[in-house]
Amino acid sequence: MTSPAQRRSLAGEEEALARLAARLPPPPAGEVWIGDDAAVLAGDRGPLLFATDLVAEGVHFDRRLSSLADVGWKLLAANLSDIAAMGGRPLRCVVALAGGLGDDLDALYDGLEEAAAAFSCPVVGGDLSAPPLGGGLCVSLAVLGTTDGRPPVTRAGGRPGDAVLVSGPLGAAAAGLRLLRADPAAEGPAVAAHRRPVPRLAAGRAAAVAGARAMIDVSDGLGLDLDRLARASGVGVELDTVPTAPEASEAEALGGGEDYELVVALADPGALVAAHAAAGLAPPIEIGRLVADPSRRRLQEAPLPIAGWRHRAGV
Amino acid sequence: MTSPAQRRSLAGEEEALARLAARLPPPPAGEVWIGDDAAVLAGDRGPLLFATDLVAEGVHFDRRLSSLADVGWKLLAANLSDIAAMGGRPLRCVVALAGGLGDDLDALYDGLEEAAAAFSCPVVGGDLSAPPLGGGLCVSLAVLGTTDGRPPVTRAGGRPGDAVLVSGPLGAAAAGLRLLRADPAAEGPAVAAHRRPVPRLAAGRAAAVAGARAMIDVSDGLGLDLDRLARASGVGVELDTVPTAPEASEAEALGGGEDYELVVALADPGALVAAHAAAGLAPPIEIGRLVADPSRRRLQEAPLPIAGWRHRAGV
Repeated sequence: MTSPAQRRSLAGEEEALARLAARLPPPPAGEVWIGDDAAVLAGDRGPLLFATDLVAEGVHFDRRLSSLADVGWKLLAANLSDIAAMGGRPLRCVVALAGGLGDDLDALYDGLEEAAAAFSCPVVGGDLSAPPLGGGLCVSLAVLGTTDGRPPVTRAGGRPGDAVLVSGPLGAAAAGLRLLRADPAAEGPAVAAHRRPVPRLAAGRAAAVAGARAMIDVSDGLGLDLDRLARASGVGVELDTVPTAPEASEAEALGGGEDYELVVALADPGALVAAHAAAGLAPPIEIGRLVADPSRRRLQEAPLPIAGWRHRAGV
Repeated sequence: MTSPAQRRSLAGEEEALARLAARLPPPPAGEVWIGDDAAVLAGDRGPLLFATDLVAEGVHFDRRLSSLADVGWKLLAANLSDIAAMGGRPLRCVVALAGGLGDDLDALYDGLEEAAAAFSCPVVGGDLSAPPLGGGLCVSLAVLGTTDGRPPVTRAGGRPGDAVLVSGPLGAAAAGLRLLRADPAAEGPAVAAHRRPVPRLAAGRAAAVAGARAMIDVSDGLGLDLDRLARASGVGVELDTVPTAPEASEAEALGGGEDYELVVALADPGALVAAHAAAGLAPPIEIGRLVADPSRRRLQEAPLPIAGWRHRAGV
């Protein structure tokens, strides 16, 4: 489950990003700037994707529960998930680090390079420095990707009547963190989901090929991320079900975040099922639909829990 | 002048980067990974440049001597200097920040956006979070650039006999920091050079057009940066003179860093003089030559001071 510090950060981040986006000049045709999973740049032969992510010690990770190798892996996985959520393929990344330059750095790089090899996104440059005032480790990554000439799938293209599907069950990462907090020696699939998440790159490309109109990755919780997609698309959302990972509670599946499954809105859910089958992926799960009323957020007969987060957050 | 913390960081960074570079697979033909000012990626219509820089509070800046707007400007300027040093033109950047999300953030963005507008490199995405354990602000930037189809100018192409020129006099930024430490209300060109450095983008492109074989920006001091160029090119270097900015000492000009002037090695110095004139730039200053003996580092009859730095540094 997201930590209180992360929740505070999330609410502040939403507001601060909105403030900053309002200051920017409008992007040229064919580009998408702040406000989606990755920025879209107009390349010579099709769109380029550009995204950055940062983890700060005490906010995003706790050295007692994850090794620095896990932190390195997870940082790249999270950043690649932003590329996946646009229907893209990663090309290269650069890393910047303020922190230890000794064994810590090697451990972090172990995990980073494992992920770089696993997901075909080599680290091609970096910047290293001493830790900031106070000593907390801080690592950022920037990834460049491509859509291989296809239009990128943004958060903004969803339409009323679109089916909403998710690439897999949710809540495993949150369950893993809960298990680790109870017992730092805990192991198993939920712990692995927390420590070594996997970006759904093949599922993202399958969704783009299948005609996805809108897509987002579940990085901060299904409720919050669906709300973002719905707001960007100017629609409402009705869910029938929340597919929950074996070790997770429904609350973890709804609000946990860091699962990095993809949520896809498209007219023809059968096309996404077929694209997953063609790519050898487990079938996506249909969970609901987009509706015309932009204020609607329902899970069966109840309000979809999202506001609770921001409420508890308060900066 | 670079702070003791920065010096420690520099020596550690050199060593850590070498360790990390050794772990990477070799880049494919046409690409340059860790070890130059920016990474070079093979694009569809010519090279792309990709670089990242990070500033950490207490290591790279002191809020008592620079406003956060200055910190934002300087971070982008330093990163764009890496693009300039490859002969490139910036395209877009993304920013990641761990720190305050309130007024601090707005001040930082004021400077960042001023620089983005001044140097035509819009901020297209970002990631914001709470500060790391200990509270020190940490900001990273990644820039994407292009060489407009020209081959990039790396550090590694210098040959014995090449003339060495610098795009302008050195030491102003270090002098400015010294003046500010004596009197935080100090003003003038040296203080401006410290707070609002200017990446030499036009000079970098002029050098590429004029046939530069090797180039580096003076970010850590002429001695250290020339040593990097000489090592990458497998040559030695002999300097006749160190052009010194009006308010600077010769030690500041040699070791100060953060001037972001460009050092260029090429066969025909007249071609660089002509390219500067054609671009409406002040003439470059010839300061010495590359020589065959790779161990040679001379300033007139004396050893070129570089080792002193790493010596004092010690991690």
